[in-house]
Amino acid sequence: MTYQLHYWPGIQGRGEFVRLALEAAGAPYVDVARGPKDQGQGVAAMMTVMQSPAQQHPPFAPPFLIDGRVVIGQTAAILLYLGPRLGLVGKSEVKRLWTHQLQLTIADAVAEVHDTHHPLAMHLFYEDQQDAAVARAKAFREQRIPKFLAWFESVLARNPAGNGHLVGARLSYADLSLFQLVEGLRYAFPETSRRALRRAPQVASLHASVAQHRRLAAYLASTRRIAFNEEGIFRRYPALDG
Amino acid sequence: MTYQLHYWPGIQGRGEFVRLALEAAGAPYVDVARGPKDQGQGVAAMMTVMQSPAQQHPPFAPPFLIDGRVVIGQTAAILLYLGPRLGLVGKSEVKRLWTHQLQLTIADAVAEVHDTHHPLAMHLFYEDQQDAAVARAKAFREQRIPKFLAWFESVLARNPAGNGHLVGARLSYADLSLFQLVEGLRYAFPETSRRALRRAPQVASLHASVAQHRRLAAYLASTRRIAFNEEGIFRRYPALDG
Repeated sequence: MTYQLHYWPGIQGRGEFVRLALEAAGAPYVDVARGPKDQGQGVAAMMTVMQSPAQQHPPFAPPFLIDGRVVIGQTAAILLYLGPRLGLVGKSEVKRLWTHQLQLTIADAVAEVHDTHHPLAMHLFYEDQQDAAVARAKAFREQRIPKFLAWFESVLARNPAGNGHLVGARLSYADLSLFQLVEGLRYAFPETSRRALRRAPQVASLHASVAQHRRLAAYLASTRRIAFNEEGIFRRYPALDG
Repeated sequence: MTYQLHYWPGIQGRGEFVRLALEAAGAPYVDVARGPKDQGQGVAAMMTVMQSPAQQHPPFAPPFLIDGRVVIGQTAAILLYLGPRLGLVGKSEVKRLWTHQLQLTIADAVAEVHDTHHPLAMHLFYEDQQDAAVARAKAFREQRIPKFLAWFESVLARNPAGNGHLVGARLSYADLSLFQLVEGLRYAFPETSRRALRRAPQVASLHASVAQHRRLAAYLASTRRIAFNEEGIFRRYPALDG
């Protein structure tokens, strides 16, 4: 079965967390909104699904995944669904919940990253809320990045047999998502991240080792990987780094 | 088995979404941080769990739930765990995922409500970020409340056999959480909510019917229900309503 991933083309955004899981597992998928219009793909195809009144489970926003008759929105819910199917989560309920809890905390961090450049209104330009963005980013750099990274560091430290993984001794979607969070932080806040990762060596090491995962490394080097840019969630605005 | 709920005393906050599920199901639970210190409860007991290096799955923040040896943080993950145990979610995987997806969208709305009064930094006072709060609240009132409520309205409309429920024909934890979101919006943004709910009559009706649920009604009238206040997530600051 080929999965359909629907997400805004042109940015990594939240869709990237799903892409990393599909790519790491070598799962067949179509990145619908990035596909050619004459093959029934493109943004219009994505909007059709979202706006169809026949859609029993309408997604609130992209990303969403279609697997046969199943339509799932919300990044963390998509990974909850894909995890067991892609072999990217442990078998026990406790492991699955813990992996999901890690994912939800990564999602919280990602939402906070978004708000560093859009603290007042997501429908206005960054340039129209830059003073507020500078204030919000300062709090995020000083209070939140250290808190999030320290927590993930402590999770890794408490999983000593984990061979550098967050849960158990095998790669999970939470590892992939933490890789992506770190990758994004390094792009958006290079100075802050360099300092912060020095205090979270196991997080830094997980980031480095995920990047070397065979399938992931191939993906990251491919044109399927969209470059970070200033339309996405992780944006490099020097005024916001410290 | 008596569940232990750990959350800041004095506010409804995110803990309230878990309380509503436990209360609606009539499940035995201890609200640990609100309990007496001489019985090993209180905030200190909660902090001990969070800070213990022996904790394999340390919660990032309250609320968290303890059920025997299982410790779960993240409101939505707690409800994912409790749902089947309390009979507050359907049996099929698709229903469980859909219910969870609704919950995650409610969680997103709740995070946005929080940021209306704390748009710049959660560790600073509202009074020190009031101008930004006024701007953020305007965008939330005009863009986001209508979008969230319209989506929940469409979900209810697409579940015609649902007897006023979001998923299937029975009460789920998503119904309880949507009740709480509406209750909070009515407290924090009374004018805006009155207008917005007129355009979302099925959401308004779900809110009214959950309030009459036998166990819920008893809970809401009890001293276990903390009143909304200006320390919580839903705060009534007239400058932020429109």
